[in-house]
Amino acid sequence: MQLKGSLSIIIRLEIKKSNKMFGQIATVVNNAEGDIIAIDVIKEEKDRTIRDITVNVQEENQIDNIIKEINLLPGVSTIHVSDRTFLVHLGGKLETTPRLPVKNRDDLSRVYTPGVARICLAISEDKSLVHSLTIKRNTVAVVSDGSAVLGLGNIGPEAAMPVMEGKAVLFKQLGDVNAFPICIDSQDTDEIVKMIKGIAPSFGGINLEDIASPRCFEIEKKLTEELDIPVFHDDQHGTAVVILAGLLNAIKIVQKRLEDCKVVICGIGAAGIACTKMLQSAGVQNIIGVDRDGALVKGKNYNNDKWKWYANNTNPNIEVGSLSDVIIDADIFIGVSAPGVLQVSDIKNMGKDPIVFAMANPTPEILPEEAEPYVKVLATGRSDYPNQINNVLCFPGIFRGALDVRASKITEKMKLAAAYAISNVVTEEELNPNYIIPSVFNEKVVESVRKAVAHAAYQSGVTKKD
Amino acid sequence: MQLKGSLSIIIRLEIKKSNKMFGQIATVVNNAEGDIIAIDVIKEEKDRTIRDITVNVQEENQIDNIIKEINLLPGVSTIHVSDRTFLVHLGGKLETTPRLPVKNRDDLSRVYTPGVARICLAISEDKSLVHSLTIKRNTVAVVSDGSAVLGLGNIGPEAAMPVMEGKAVLFKQLGDVNAFPICIDSQDTDEIVKMIKGIAPSFGGINLEDIASPRCFEIEKKLTEELDIPVFHDDQHGTAVVILAGLLNAIKIVQKRLEDCKVVICGIGAAGIACTKMLQSAGVQNIIGVDRDGALVKGKNYNNDKWKWYANNTNPNIEVGSLSDVIIDADIFIGVSAPGVLQVSDIKNMGKDPIVFAMANPTPEILPEEAEPYVKVLATGRSDYPNQINNVLCFPGIFRGALDVRASKITEKMKLAAAYAISNVVTEEELNPNYIIPSVFNEKVVESVRKAVAHAAYQSGVTKKD
Repeated sequence: MQLKGSLSIIIRLEIKKSNKMFGQIATVVNNAEGDIIAIDVIKEEKDRTIRDITVNVQEENQIDNIIKEINLLPGVSTIHVSDRTFLVHLGGKLETTPRLPVKNRDDLSRVYTPGVARICLAISEDKSLVHSLTIKRNTVAVVSDGSAVLGLGNIGPEAAMPVMEGKAVLFKQLGDVNAFPICIDSQDTDEIVKMIKGIAPSFGGINLEDIASPRCFEIEKKLTEELDIPVFHDDQHGTAVVILAGLLNAIKIVQKRLEDCKVVICGIGAAGIACTKMLQSAGVQNIIGVDRDGALVKGKNYNNDKWKWYANNTNPNIEVGSLSDVIIDADIFIGVSAPGVLQVSDIKNMGKDPIVFAMANPTPEILPEEAEPYVKVLATGRSDYPNQINNVLCFPGIFRGALDVRASKITEKMKLAAAYAISNVVTEEELNPNYIIPSVFNEKVVESVRKAVAHAAYQSGVTKKD
Repeated sequence: MQLKGSLSIIIRLEIKKSNKMFGQIATVVNNAEGDIIAIDVIKEEKDRTIRDITVNVQEENQIDNIIKEINLLPGVSTIHVSDRTFLVHLGGKLETTPRLPVKNRDDLSRVYTPGVARICLAISEDKSLVHSLTIKRNTVAVVSDGSAVLGLGNIGPEAAMPVMEGKAVLFKQLGDVNAFPICIDSQDTDEIVKMIKGIAPSFGGINLEDIASPRCFEIEKKLTEELDIPVFHDDQHGTAVVILAGLLNAIKIVQKRLEDCKVVICGIGAAGIACTKMLQSAGVQNIIGVDRDGALVKGKNYNNDKWKWYANNTNPNIEVGSLSDVIIDADIFIGVSAPGVLQVSDIKNMGKDPIVFAMANPTPEILPEEAEPYVKVLATGRSDYPNQINNVLCFPGIFRGALDVRASKITEKMKLAAAYAISNVVTEEELNPNYIIPSVFNEKVVESVRKAVAHAAYQSGVTKKD
């Protein structure tokens, strides 16, 4: 996995004053490819000094080397090493806080007994009041079973917590949506569905995350049918929405219409399928899906229902063969697959002004450096290249909008609206091949997604509130 | 239910300026037993003025009367009426907030991808790290199925939310424990157990609340056996701890020893049974339980397992009959039953210096005004009389202590320690018949309970951390 920029360590050193060592320490760290970005004096004694040095490194394995080299220096020893990424996680990244402080008996009698009893009665008489008089109004559960976490696979519910907490932090900070991480200790579809339904009274929405396919489809389908609050599997739909947002701007640059484009999608898993459906709703006619055994085509026999559906609903010209075969004359390549599956020769065979979205993370389907000379527009999932396709652009705003109008579902219309809203944040003047999608910190994004999604919710007829 | 002090309404009035009405409005409100506590001018126009008047009332039914009377006044009309208790509940009482803001890409790469992946890996390699690197460290689930909410009964999970939210607010504000309300849409014991176990990876403790008996016993028993985090049914154990805390000080006043006291407990439900066990652990020998059909005694046949246990483990002198029969010569009466079950004549038949804890809420087993002349020490569950026995004195500190040492259970020893810690907050000098228990806002309480519980956890051998 890519750790670039994320690995910054703090080394506490004891230095005997007899020998002036600091220059040598700096040299040792630099030689080990560490970058000293801060020095703090912790304690000065007459014969020794204690200092913290903060060092950025590219990879974890450099750390041991740096420590070893430092400890070789006479009169210098490392007391301990702490890692800033670990430090920010100590005690968790989220807290629950009262919206109003309880300062005296009077407050207490309102937020708790006896006053609260009247709120309970009101809700028991009109259940819909739970949406206005409790946190259900504005709170989403970020739910995972830990079966497909980031690129790490099935690491279990405990190990999935830091991701779900991080997501909850972003929900609040970017969308002012309260979010709570729920990591479920089961990988049985029906059990998971039952548990999420069981705790649903506390929540206004369910964001499913990092759940293995095909279980994720089944869980989302059942919950959407059986709950009256929005259920959204971000790995599928968030990705699809942001990819479409990027494409909507990319085709402006090459002056094509989606309807006329030939799109090859590589990797027909949860994200690939959701992305295909999204593009179809946006008007794309000719999509060819490619996976292990080449292009998916009608007639071929697949043991996987999703692929059966796919073969019957895409690839209108029944193009067969490998990625290299079907990518000929394609206008758009979308990779949600694995590192290195796309060759420069493939890009050369694409149509005029190729658009390549190489989303495999951390290592894309083709290295940007290799692809750049031959493409018109290139996007990846990475923050260290232009045009980062990042779900963070979608989920805070789409739930913000859905909660504001008490939508019971997140419809195709609402997802489309979100994609257009994200792409429209980039103005005609700003638009260029290196800027087709706004930054995750662009403050216009959430508000425009919120508005568009709320409006689309009305048009979809799924709102319970004006 | 008692609404005293909790009912404060804001009435927005339109007053024609032609007639100077305010005096008459005040008179009308006062005659309807409303107490005007604030007046705000919202808008002044040349011919009319808009004002908000905040009025405290004792009971809900007074409101309509006040509004009716005001609207009878010429040139005055009420625009709308809002209720402060409802206002504080709008949008919920709790929010989730990031402990560290995400200000830039560097922060993002630490709290979320890619940096977070290293935290996930660390936990997947050593599961126990979830207790230090996630919110599990310091977060409790406040769980209810909505089957026995306050005095309101089985009002369901949605209507239970305001209570669980209020509890979560108090957990944070008093104990700095993060707490999240989980209201479960099932009233099947095994399903509830399964669901709570299912979401347990996210939590460091489970506070069960307002779950009907006998289901509450079963759920707590199974969860305590099957989970490695503390599970605590507050209605049972919180109540028992705080009652014992009060008694420990009450007997100092009457200069008796618990070992020598005859205690009559009225109402042998969840709280009554937990209270009995707590008193037994504290050394009380002679406890007599009384319920519908009188004193529970060995030999009699009960279809309820809890009562069978009770009859065989209490009432050593096999005293039979009604409350009035067995209360003769009792030193202590504890009511966790219903309004009015205790008569003045019963108190007169008690031993020297009677101690009466009349906990039925909102209306005690005997009205304090009636009991006071005949008792030495009187305690109730109410905030408007001295000696309020309130669970708020227990749960924040007991979980604070348990979480701080990563206790896997809350043992009898820990509960006893909590009771002694609460009672010891009242100094010998302060102690008097009207002050046997500290106020819920006494800042010493949580810290002393925390210390005592953490220490007791070590002694119980249930800690996983120094």
